[in-house]
Amino acid sequence: MKLAYVETDGRRFVAVRKGANFVDLSRSPLRWNKGLTDLLALGPDGLAAARSAVASADGSSLVDPAAVTYLRLNEPHCVTCVGSNYAAHIRERAKPFPKEPSCFLKGLPAFVAHRQPLERPGNSEQFDYEAELVIVVGRAGRHVPIERALDFVAGYTLMNDGSVRDFQERYSNITLGKNFPASSALGPEMVTADDVPPGAHGLRISTRINGSTAQDSNTADLVFDVPMLVSLVSHTVGLRPGDLIATGTPSGVAAGMTPPKWLKAGDEIEMSIEGVCTLSNIVVDALVAPAGHGYDRAAYAPKVLR
Amino acid sequence: MKLAYVETDGRRFVAVRKGANFVDLSRSPLRWNKGLTDLLALGPDGLAAARSAVASADGSSLVDPAAVTYLRLNEPHCVTCVGSNYAAHIRERAKPFPKEPSCFLKGLPAFVAHRQPLERPGNSEQFDYEAELVIVVGRAGRHVPIERALDFVAGYTLMNDGSVRDFQERYSNITLGKNFPASSALGPEMVTADDVPPGAHGLRISTRINGSTAQDSNTADLVFDVPMLVSLVSHTVGLRPGDLIATGTPSGVAAGMTPPKWLKAGDEIEMSIEGVCTLSNIVVDALVAPAGHGYDRAAYAPKVLR
Repeated sequence: MKLAYVETDGRRFVAVRKGANFVDLSRSPLRWNKGLTDLLALGPDGLAAARSAVASADGSSLVDPAAVTYLRLNEPHCVTCVGSNYAAHIRERAKPFPKEPSCFLKGLPAFVAHRQPLERPGNSEQFDYEAELVIVVGRAGRHVPIERALDFVAGYTLMNDGSVRDFQERYSNITLGKNFPASSALGPEMVTADDVPPGAHGLRISTRINGSTAQDSNTADLVFDVPMLVSLVSHTVGLRPGDLIATGTPSGVAAGMTPPKWLKAGDEIEMSIEGVCTLSNIVVDALVAPAGHGYDRAAYAPKVLR
Repeated sequence: MKLAYVETDGRRFVAVRKGANFVDLSRSPLRWNKGLTDLLALGPDGLAAARSAVASADGSSLVDPAAVTYLRLNEPHCVTCVGSNYAAHIRERAKPFPKEPSCFLKGLPAFVAHRQPLERPGNSEQFDYEAELVIVVGRAGRHVPIERALDFVAGYTLMNDGSVRDFQERYSNITLGKNFPASSALGPEMVTADDVPPGAHGLRISTRINGSTAQDSNTADLVFDVPMLVSLVSHTVGLRPGDLIATGTPSGVAAGMTPPKWLKAGDEIEMSIEGVCTLSNIVVDALVAPAGHGYDRAAYAPKVLR
């Protein structure tokens, strides 16, 4: 089952794929008027109820996918992201090989939805893309062992983990460079875990920039796999329905090229994960900072060094 | 003006100090039924309206502060935190002196409110406290120069940036160790910027554990000061009303002692910033992980090393 969160005619609703159409869950027998996170909070019963509502939905609830505006997939409490999790990407970035996962959080203001413009910051030339498999948590949990971790996964989606490389490198923590407003994208659909192999293993993951292949890898190449990451997050940040865990990106990012092919206004980004979804965004220039208001390294020198 | 978000008799409301009492803003002439973030989203007009409503509030809107349950102060889109920002704390943690701020995000599940129990994780002995001055953003902004940064500050509050030191140290990014559920506390009150010196400069900041002083410093010792941090966040994560920027902690944390005095169940933590607020929490043990379900380093070894 594939679910999205969309708007049409001023109505916002969870939309479920049925053949070439969407079923509007708010007009289905389930009459679900809330978002995806609230549906997931019902546990497996929520997805089961959606599934049977879709099966029995009549024509009055069908919506043409071409007619909807995609909204951000859901409202997670936490988006935990893993860096450096495909061997070839670690090599292209010339990073040390991680003995354990390196994690950071992304805040919701960083995300736009499918087909919404992605903002290239006015104060950086080094705007980069990263296609990532994202785990959608289905149940609350703490201290979940690896062998039970997949029981806590509702499904999977896709993220473009937009990265402002010079800001990411400038600080001892990459968080700022990963959290520019509207620099990242999420969705458009969550596929339920039963529709892909266990742990979303062995799925092709790829990025095309203006139609040319940039990233082309497979989730089988994850260094820390889905069960490991779910378990680790359960031992630390905790699991809540709707929370997202982004699993890192394969090689082929702009920063790994010589010279780097940084994103520029007008670039069309299309990312896919086999059997999950395809995410498309066009890059625009964010409102440019007034002259002299950009980041000025000297202004931030610690006072005890000045 | 000092504002909190509280509950009493099943009602949740923004409460504003008036002498020894709170004014219930939902029963004041303003009839404000939403939270603090929505009030701040109105800009300076929101706080001005609250101020005049409080001035003209009659007895029917007064609430005894002893009768309320404190709720999490607000619902920020982002909580950006700065590490290593007091020289004495950098020395006690034996960290390199930062040339630029090192930032990470905290998610909302990490926070409890004033007087709510703070959860010591079941899978760590190294639970630590950090008193921090927190900037409350009052206006949306990008690329704000340092000299205009204070115009974007609505006020200040206090955070206990609960830190699980072994998890913080184990990874190349401290984020996981900073985001255990219910490990941190926020509030209880926001003081408006006009009630403290510009940039909250020169305020005593202190922590008492079971009545004994542990941290005792002054915000004048911040390495990167309030205008610098507001400007930096505006150039990266962006500013939105209600967003929080935590400015780092002074020396005196458990990890800096020999031997470290880690927090244990029953410990009473009281933190104060002069003229801002006092935050109190008691430590409890989180539900302990079932045997064998704790963090197992070998289980997370990257597969290419195994």
